[in-house]
Formats: sequence, structure tokens, C-alpha cells
Amino acid sequence: MASQSGPEAAEEHTSGADIQSFFDSAPPLKNSLEITDKLKEFLDKNSIPTRDGRANRVVCVTSGGTTVPLEQRCVRYIDNFSSGHRGAASTEYFLKAGYAVIFLYRRGTCQPFCRSLPDDPFLECFKFIDKSHVKVREPHSEAVKMAISDHHNVIEKGLLLKLPFTTIFEYLQMLQMVATSLSVLGPHAMFYLAAAVSDFYVPWKSMAEHKIQSGSGPLDMSLVQVPKMLAVLRKEWAPFAYCISFKLETDKNILLKKADMALSKYKMHVVVANELLTRKEEVVVVTGDGKVSVCRDKTQVDSDVEDPLIKLLVEKHSIHLEDSCS
Amino acid sequence: MASQSGPEAAEEHTSGADIQSFFDSAPPLKNSLEITDKLKEFLDKNSIPTRDGRANRVVCVTSGGTTVPLEQRCVRYIDNFSSGHRGAASTEYFLKAGYAVIFLYRRGTCQPFCRSLPDDPFLECFKFIDKSHVKVREPHSEAVKMAISDHHNVIEKGLLLKLPFTTIFEYLQMLQMVATSLSVLGPHAMFYLAAAVSDFYVPWKSMAEHKIQSGSGPLDMSLVQVPKMLAVLRKEWAPFAYCISFKLETDKNILLKKADMALSKYKMHVVVANELLTRKEEVVVVTGDGKVSVCRDKTQVDSDVEDPLIKLLVEKHSIHLEDSCS
Repeated sequence: MASQSGPEAAEEHTSGADIQSFFDSAPPLKNSLEITDKLKEFLDKNSIPTRDGRANRVVCVTSGGTTVPLEQRCVRYIDNFSSGHRGAASTEYFLKAGYAVIFLYRRGTCQPFCRSLPDDPFLECFKFIDKSHVKVREPHSEAVKMAISDHHNVIEKGLLLKLPFTTIFEYLQMLQMVATSLSVLGPHAMFYLAAAVSDFYVPWKSMAEHKIQSGSGPLDMSLVQVPKMLAVLRKEWAPFAYCISFKLETDKNILLKKADMALSKYKMHVVVANELLTRKEEVVVVTGDGKVSVCRDKTQVDSDVEDPLIKLLVEKHSIHLEDSCS
Repeated sequence: MASQSGPEAAEEHTSGADIQSFFDSAPPLKNSLEITDKLKEFLDKNSIPTRDGRANRVVCVTSGGTTVPLEQRCVRYIDNFSSGHRGAASTEYFLKAGYAVIFLYRRGTCQPFCRSLPDDPFLECFKFIDKSHVKVREPHSEAVKMAISDHHNVIEKGLLLKLPFTTIFEYLQMLQMVATSLSVLGPHAMFYLAAAVSDFYVPWKSMAEHKIQSGSGPLDMSLVQVPKMLAVLRKEWAPFAYCISFKLETDKNILLKKADMALSKYKMHVVVANELLTRKEEVVVVTGDGKVSVCRDKTQVDSDVEDPLIKLLVEKHSIHLEDSCS
């Protein structure tokens, strides 16, 4: 299993034609009208300046992994693993910092305010005490109350818009819709791209229509590289927004090198570098000014690395806003 | 994307050596002691004859799809799509028919008694009316009550044992553990193999240790066929159990041919043939005696094809038991 040349060569080749060909090959998004309406309603509410005259800040947090279908009538697909924990936690801290959040997430992954629940909270957290009265089982009562109340609170106030995706095709089409909508906010919009996006895909038209048959020999597959959309997001979709992308590697020796490369190649404002095994303890915030390591507060049992990370990013966003307005 | 020879050739090649090599290459199961204990407790309870002297019947229902990791520190994997709806519905009907059920299911897929709930029932079905009182939101109250009460009822009575898997390695190791345990029940045990099992895998030792790097060219992958375990299940793991496997195809022209082939090659008692687009409406029950089409009762809005299907299979299991004892 190997790609045919090094990563440097890779990213040189992303062109407008590659991107057009990716979107042309994508199956049309089923609920695009509904998404357009939801985005409009969300922006109508959250683009009005606050009482003290400050413009609202809006962040699009992407979360979870995308899938790549291998067959048109989809039975098999390649998936990128991501629990969505980072995106869910970060959404909570952005809301706390006063941002309105568009949470673009993979169906079935971790949801904001639901991180301390057991695996199957619906079946594990409740019991009926008689025919019509339900009760929360101990020891879950505090976690359940927080999850349900805090979640409904931000949804009802219109501060959190949740948009689910599954495939790489859905994800990139939805990201484009969100980005072109948010572009009206100029530098007040932020992108926090924590989703684990597939690097390779099978173009829809060259995909097997029916289920691939198993045979005696090995299965040989050839996947094409997904064009890098970060550059297009920065240049065309939302050119004034503050953009943060993530780099996850299992090999720490190449991590910072790849983070630097992403920063310069895609003109990101920040790249957050994280290593698979230590990602809940420490991340490195890479900007044009240098690298800052951010760690979880180890004196607290339940602390999150996203707490200091979002604080730092909000500060950097404020500086970006001052620079943009001066 | 193509396998190198036809399906007939394929299945000839499965040998004891292939199976040994698959298990040797698998990462060890993490919670095998815990599973052994749970199986022992479940069988101690459910292998005692009932009050009227009938032996208990136990079925192992497998449900949902397996994954194939592409990297040892798993970020990417190939997944087989299956909602787990068939397995969850069938489990309910087997319990209704008096069977005890081992539900071997993919994490995150549909659970018994939870089929009529919304997508994210935990967040959508409840609200806090004050700090300590929770209430079920309309229109979900009946569905929630059934899900929670019926589910807890069978769990508490020890009639339903739920065992979750994710990878093909976990699935086959757990199936072997369940099968060798259930073999003590002889013909009273049944296997209802509705899981969507991967056909191809990457042997653990030849797998990339680190995340595959994206490059400019296409990604070429070569996957090896998963040895067919059905024959081993029938011949060695649980030779007297009643075995039902499933054949799912998107192309109905090859479906029945493949079902017949599975029946004779793996010595299944029944193969249930289903086509992707119509699988909730109709299935074909294929046995050595012929083919019977089973349809959902279309006069009822909420009827399931699993209702008449399980009735038919329970009858066939009864005949198998009579034949085995005479």
C-alpha cells in the first residue's frame, strides 16, 4: 500500500481543474435547500451586532471523519476514524467564549455537552419508575442534566446550528455552502477545521455500480487524491475569515514539518499539530510567528486541552480582527 | 477495482492454513476474559430445561458490519455498511418466540427495541421540567417507554446478552468463542448470521505502522481475502447447531445463484437471500428443499419482514430438533 510520490509533490498539483472535477463527480447533495434555509436563519440572527455594538463572532467547527464510498449502491466504504471528541469539546468552549457555532459533524460522532455520558446513554441512563414516569439512573444524573439542559439551551437560543455529514462528497459541498454564507461576516468568521478528511477517493462515475464480488485473488484498488480544498476556502470561499486547520500524525518526527508545510501552502492563520497518542494532553499551535505548546491543566482530573487551546485561539482571532479593522 | 478471479474459484481455496494464518495475524482480543465470564453466566442460566421439561433454545444473532483496519495505529479503515436493523428486529422476534439471544453486534448500530426512535434519541426525546425531573417529549413517549422498559426487562431476566465488536478480527474471534461455548447445547443452538462481514483484509503484520501519507499519485492497495469461516463454524466450532447465513447483493441476477452456492459449500441449513433495495419488504429463504419467498404483511403499516421470517425459521429449527433427537 503506497502512494506514488512524496507529499511535497502532491500538493503542488492541486488545481482549479482538479477541484471542478471533484465537485462534478460528486453525487448531488440531497438536502441542500434545507441547509440553505437553516444557514440563512442562523446568520440573520447571529450577524446583528450585540447591544454593546460589538459584531458577533461565528465559528464553523468541523468534526469527525468523512467516508469514501467504494460502490455506488454503497455497501463498502473507506472511513477515517475520529470520535469527534475534539470538535465537541471545542464547540462548548467557543460557546462559552461568546461565539455562535456551526457544528459540521459526522453522523453518530460525539456531540457537544455529551462527553461525560456512557457509550449508549439512551439505554443506560434512564428507567421507568411507573408507566408514565421516567427517572435518571445514578451515577449519571449530573451528566445527563448538563447534556440535555445545556444542549437545548444553546439550540433554543439559536447559538448552535448542527449540520451532519457522512461522505467526503457531502462534507466538502456543505463546507463550501457554509463558507460562502459566512463570507459576509468578513474577519468575524472563523473556521476551525478539526474533521478528519479523507485524502483519497474513488470518483463517483468510475465507481462500481454493484457490490464488488469476492474472488480468490487479492482485491486491487486504486484511489485518487482528494483535491486540497483549504487553499480554495482561503482564497475564494471566505477570503477574510480566520482559518485554523489541524494536522494529525502517528509519527511525531514528521508532524511539525507537515504542520509548517500546511501553514505556508494553504495560507492558514493557524495549524494545530497533534500526535495520535498524546492528542488529549498536548497540541502545538503553529503560526507564522512560531510554535506554542498547549497542555491540559494536569492538576485537574477533568480538564481539557481544548480549554487553553480555545482561549489562545480567541486571543489570536481578536488580534486578527484589530489588524483587519485598522 | 477488481478481484482476480470468479467467486467459484475463490471459495475452493479456503483451507485450514488460511484460517490459522488469519487468526495468527489478528491482534489479540482485549476483553476475552470478560467475554468468557459473560458467556458462562449466560449459558449457566439458559441451558437449564424449562419447567415443562423443554430444553431452552439459544440463538446467536450477528448484526452490523465489520471494519478492516488499513493502519496499525488505526486512523483509516474499510467499513461494510449495515444499519443493524435486520439483526435488531430479528432479536426481538426470537425473544418473543422464547429463545435466549446472544446479540453479537457492531458498536453504534441499531439495538433491539430501539427501532422506532429518532436518530439521536438521547438528545431528542427528553427534557428537564425542573432541576431534578425529566420528562419524555411528545411524540416519542410510547417509543421511549417500549425501548427502555422492554430492553431492561430482557437484560435483567438474563435472556439477552449483548457483545459489541468493531473490526473483522474482533468479530471472528468472538464468533469462535460464542460458537465453541454454544456447542454444548447441540442442536438447540442456532446461528443467525446477519452481520455484513468484510470479504477482504490487510494482514496485521503487513499493515502500515504509521498513517499512510498522501502523495500526488493514486493510492494503490492490495487486500487479501478473509477466509470463509462458515465452513469451520459448521464442521468444528458447533457441528450440531442450526445455521442460517445471509446473502446480500445489489444485483438480483446473481443473488439466488450465490445463495445456492453458499448453501452447498458451507453446509448451511438455511441461506436467506436479500437484495439491497427490497430487503425490508421481501427475502427468499433458501434450503435444500427449495426456495420460499417471505414478504412483510403489507396490510399493516409497521409490519416487519422479520416477523414471518423468524416464525418460519423457528418452525424449521423445530423440525431440525425432532430429526436430531430421533
